[in-house]
Amino acid sequence: MKSESDVELCKLFGKHLAKIRKESGWSQERLANESGLARSYVGDVERGIRNIALINIFRIADTLGIDVAELFQFKR
Amino acid sequence: MKSESDVELCKLFGKHLAKIRKESGWSQERLANESGLARSYVGDVERGIRNIALINIFRIADTLGIDVAELFQFKR
Repeated sequence: MKSESDVELCKLFGKHLAKIRKESGWSQERLANESGLARSYVGDVERGIRNIALINIFRIADTLGIDVAELFQFKR
Repeated sequence: MKSESDVELCKLFGKHLAKIRKESGWSQERLANESGLARSYVGDVERGIRNIALINIFRIADTLGIDVAELFQFKR
């Protein structure tokens, strides 16, 4: 079961990912295409409604060419 | 489907988590008890045979009292 704060953490992660993606000048579509993930999935992760797991977290970081730790460098 | 390198990433993450936990002087049992996760689950994550998702990654970092980004600061 997701508690309120779990939902909040997923949202913060998604918001931070969207920020990094946009700063890289990438569209959601490009991130989806190059990572092999579905565009709807990437959108759901950025909206914080998916509890994304390790393998896809690494896949996104590698596709964007960033260190995976960067995806977690946000204020809570 | 997990590719060989996905398995490798899960193993690296698990190994790094185990290192941090041991450096904190915590047993797997204490981490499991205090996080509310099953001990077998924590063991599986540390052995790299679980594709742990965001909410549980945060739960583990918060339980250990570390920044979540620290869980991803390892050499690949």
